Amino acid sequence: MFQTFDSTASPEQGPPRLAALRAELARQGLAGFLVPRADAHQGEYVAARDERLQWLTGFTGSAGFCIVLPGVAGVFVDGRYRTQVKAQVDLAAFTPVPWPEVKPGPWIREHLAEGVIGFDPWLHTRAEIDAIAAALSPGGVTLRPVANAVDAIWPDRPPGPGARAFPHREDLAGESHGAKRARLAAELRERGERAAVLTLPDSICWLLNIRGGDVPRNPVVQAFAILRDDGSVLLFADEAKFDAGLRHDLGPEVTLAPPGDFAPALRGLSGPVRLDQGSAPLAVALALEAAGVAITWGEDPCRLPKARKNPAEIAGMREAHLRDGAAMVEFLCWLEREAPGDLTETAVVSALEGFRRATNALHDISFDTICGAGPNGAIIHYRVTTQTDRALRAGELLLVDSGGQYPDGTTDITRTLAIGDPGDEARACYTRVLRGLIAISRARWPAGLAGRDLDPLARFPLWVAGLDFDHGTGHGVGAFLSVHEGPQRISRVSEVALEPGMILSNEPGYYREGAFGIRLENLIVVREASALGDLRRQFDFETLTWVPFDRRLILTAMLSGEERAWLDGYHAGVLERIGPRLGPEAQAWLRAACAPI
Amino acid sequence: MFQTFDSTASPEQGPPRLAALRAELARQGLAGFLVPRADAHQGEYVAARDERLQWLTGFTGSAGFCIVLPGVAGVFVDGRYRTQVKAQVDLAAFTPVPWPEVKPGPWIREHLAEGVIGFDPWLHTRAEIDAIAAALSPGGVTLRPVANAVDAIWPDRPPGPGARAFPHREDLAGESHGAKRARLAAELRERGERAAVLTLPDSICWLLNIRGGDVPRNPVVQAFAILRDDGSVLLFADEAKFDAGLRHDLGPEVTLAPPGDFAPALRGLSGPVRLDQGSAPLAVALALEAAGVAITWGEDPCRLPKARKNPAEIAGMREAHLRDGAAMVEFLCWLEREAPGDLTETAVVSALEGFRRATNALHDISFDTICGAGPNGAIIHYRVTTQTDRALRAGELLLVDSGGQYPDGTTDITRTLAIGDPGDEARACYTRVLRGLIAISRARWPAGLAGRDLDPLARFPLWVAGLDFDHGTGHGVGAFLSVHEGPQRISRVSEVALEPGMILSNEPGYYREGAFGIRLENLIVVREASALGDLRRQFDFETLTWVPFDRRLILTAMLSGEERAWLDGYHAGVLERIGPRLGPEAQAWLRAACAPI
Repeated sequence: MFQTFDSTASPEQGPPRLAALRAELARQGLAGFLVPRADAHQGEYVAARDERLQWLTGFTGSAGFCIVLPGVAGVFVDGRYRTQVKAQVDLAAFTPVPWPEVKPGPWIREHLAEGVIGFDPWLHTRAEIDAIAAALSPGGVTLRPVANAVDAIWPDRPPGPGARAFPHREDLAGESHGAKRARLAAELRERGERAAVLTLPDSICWLLNIRGGDVPRNPVVQAFAILRDDGSVLLFADEAKFDAGLRHDLGPEVTLAPPGDFAPALRGLSGPVRLDQGSAPLAVALALEAAGVAITWGEDPCRLPKARKNPAEIAGMREAHLRDGAAMVEFLCWLEREAPGDLTETAVVSALEGFRRATNALHDISFDTICGAGPNGAIIHYRVTTQTDRALRAGELLLVDSGGQYPDGTTDITRTLAIGDPGDEARACYTRVLRGLIAISRARWPAGLAGRDLDPLARFPLWVAGLDFDHGTGHGVGAFLSVHEGPQRISRVSEVALEPGMILSNEPGYYREGAFGIRLENLIVVREASALGDLRRQFDFETLTWVPFDRRLILTAMLSGEERAWLDGYHAGVLERIGPRLGPEAQAWLRAACAPI
Repeated sequence: MFQTFDSTASPEQGPPRLAALRAELARQGLAGFLVPRADAHQGEYVAARDERLQWLTGFTGSAGFCIVLPGVAGVFVDGRYRTQVKAQVDLAAFTPVPWPEVKPGPWIREHLAEGVIGFDPWLHTRAEIDAIAAALSPGGVTLRPVANAVDAIWPDRPPGPGARAFPHREDLAGESHGAKRARLAAELRERGERAAVLTLPDSICWLLNIRGGDVPRNPVVQAFAILRDDGSVLLFADEAKFDAGLRHDLGPEVTLAPPGDFAPALRGLSGPVRLDQGSAPLAVALALEAAGVAITWGEDPCRLPKARKNPAEIAGMREAHLRDGAAMVEFLCWLEREAPGDLTETAVVSALEGFRRATNALHDISFDTICGAGPNGAIIHYRVTTQTDRALRAGELLLVDSGGQYPDGTTDITRTLAIGDPGDEARACYTRVLRGLIAISRARWPAGLAGRDLDPLARFPLWVAGLDFDHGTGHGVGAFLSVHEGPQRISRVSEVALEPGMILSNEPGYYREGAFGIRLENLIVVREASALGDLRRQFDFETLTWVPFDRRLILTAMLSGEERAWLDGYHAGVLERIGPRLGPEAQAWLRAACAPI
């Protein structure tokens, strides 16, 4: 899964709210206001309370922002959302702007000669604001941090999420929060930093071995934290979410305080204090600077340690994938029996979630299932709605990208399936995508390389046929945390060295607009490879996902001997690992699905 | 060929010269002096007159520098030369320093507390000097541009090279120098630059359609030039090299002047003037700054146009490769008949050059041939000397990397050959290297990618066996110019987008220290690929080199069907193109060598 969660639009949006916002701006002496789709945690998931962009404009995409000026309100969206934005916003009031081709600074210059544009410093990083300010300088337009003007006119703004926080078991975390805090504190001391400010919920949850439910599909607690160089933590979160047991687990070195105490606490720190340059809200930096506290701009200290999973986390991910794999196989067996029948995408999504729930271990699904039949499969960020729900038809492909959150791990798997006979052209494309997945699965490489160095291997079988796909080959995945986590990626732009324990998706695809979409996805984990040849230190991937590929879609003659051997070995592994977990019907189905090619 | 030319050491070097240099420095009030292996043209080839590093230290490597201080003289060399430097310098006088692990600035700090270190500003770029100065600041040591102190104590310094310049035929160049000058002048005007200073001989030769013989194996004229925004050129070079006919060809818009006029001419320019940040000598910038002329730091304006070969240049390269291929096939046929016999590496080098000379079109070889038998093949920068000359032995591999300069093109080819039966382990390694070469040869990719994006394809077949090679996969190649040219490369660090007309080597390898070396190299040219699939614009490679691979070293079962098809097609192409150019014996040999695998 490479796409973010889209919540559903509410029925009333657009002009009246825009007019109210402009009136509020006029009252404050502002010429404009920035409305990003972001909360103070700069994650890709935001709670309903922070869906300001959607409330104002009607646009429900997972990325974008609106710039409200006196004469124009631009809704900036990237290539994925060009069509969607036109269908969702009132085009008489809002102007879609192609982003990042058009950048905010030059666009503002074109539409405003002078005045002050307000922004909420909790919703932007310093780099974002600096880039816009630089483009506006010299000139008559300036930016000013202010209290959020949308909140001022949003009467029924939802309350903040209030889900109960709960402990993440230490046997699954593999390390006590005390040990994690001590380890990071030592790193702070080594660098001469007195504290680090944490604003990313998954970092905080990882550090303290807690989980929650404040964000859809994402088992995190929304919070801020300050990690001090003695290993103690100040945790700013709604205290009602923490029961006595959890408070006891956190112990005396973790002090819980209400969110309103965060800004005052910043002002009381001694520097230097590390801020994450990619995600810290500008408001945090402004608070520190106003109090004369020195800032070190660096990286969230949890980011890399969290990405390098320990043996307990990897063991948990393995078990979660076997459980999830069994549910997937039951689903595939059911689908082959029932499809096309009267099935629609929605029915498939429900059935799949049912098989996952039947494991009795599902905490939640890990993202809204992508299930695209025929041409819907070619829409990379497709989520079925009542308007688009398509019946399964013989001769079409069905793309299903889904995953589960289990207490011991997070899964994310895509399979593309034949409904009836989709023809040899679709098979040829499927086989090329499969070859890309196999190349990454088989990869072994000298230590030190980044995801960027592996990405072409997944594309080569497509490139030689004049094909490609328009997304990264893989993203990082958390352990019972976010299904998207950094910094590791397999993509043209990822320079982060791959290290043992990093979990990634391996998901090449191919999309033919108006016709079909293919994507195949396993999760993999970087490990030290067995000694071979003469490279001093080399890594390879262990595959976590064990679910067969649809043999009806594979043109065996297109595979090399090595690729065939990998595939047969993989299918044998599926049968061995998943078979014993199945009922008799699915077991028989799996035996046939996993026979040598 | 990925390695530079090494000239031969002269018999007397070392301590007396070092003592004389220190005395000269003391006389000038200097505490030290920088002695790079560089001339004012920052190329990888330098004339005898500029071999100051070798004259002072005895070190003949193609890269390195000496820092002379009162108590120590460090010779900085990279990993290729760690062994060689110890054998060549007097270790009582000179201290080898591992570079780039140890950087000049910190090393100077460690060995000198205060004083002025001189350097010749014609031999360093601004970036080089700035980096050292930054590492020395704050502190008691400073850098000062001075007249070259080595020249002051080098009594019998060779005269500058005096080879005659000659025209490069316009039908081979494909564009008149007037058209080239007009094209680049328009670009200067577009950027508001009044002139560009050219200090790279191959840029100047490309621009003016001239060639020369001032540098070993490299058909260039050593010169400086100023290209003005009206398309006129001031050319600073030894006037004796230009005869009346060539002066007439250059026409009235190209003004020839002696090298001594270059610095005064710089002072007379109106700015802004573009300098190449990667290669312009600091002395050029200092002269402009002293005269108050504004500088734009950018790229040599000839660099990219020269890299994008036009159809006439590509046609010339094709023909040169067919001619050179026929010589190579005659050589391979001879070698198979004669080897091992009494042959040594030296005899092989002589024979190969003889076959090239027999074409009656050879201007020069394009670099000193690399010919390594058995373990010598594993020394990546190996050049045979009387001390190392090794007899060919049955059961060993022979690596031969060579090329020719022809008036219509430059060639560079590597083949690795079986002498007797080298065993299946060597064959397996050879086959993996060949698979890498085939992957690059078959590559097709979306427009916009850089060499970095293709490099992993050449390594994957080695990586999966725990093997790799320690050089780039490919370098740019000039058209009857330098066998190494930029900016295009296929390497982990090359971010330059590949464009149609760029010529590159495709030369994966594998080296087992003390045992054998394998490298296989063809030249290839980027072109617009035929329409296929749905990519809007896609590129692929045309292969220029047509010489068979040694079938005795190929384990056919390790090749995929696609790889086998490529190889059979390539060999059929060799037979068709080269066969008609051969004598009967070589023709018969080639027919067998090119039979389907």
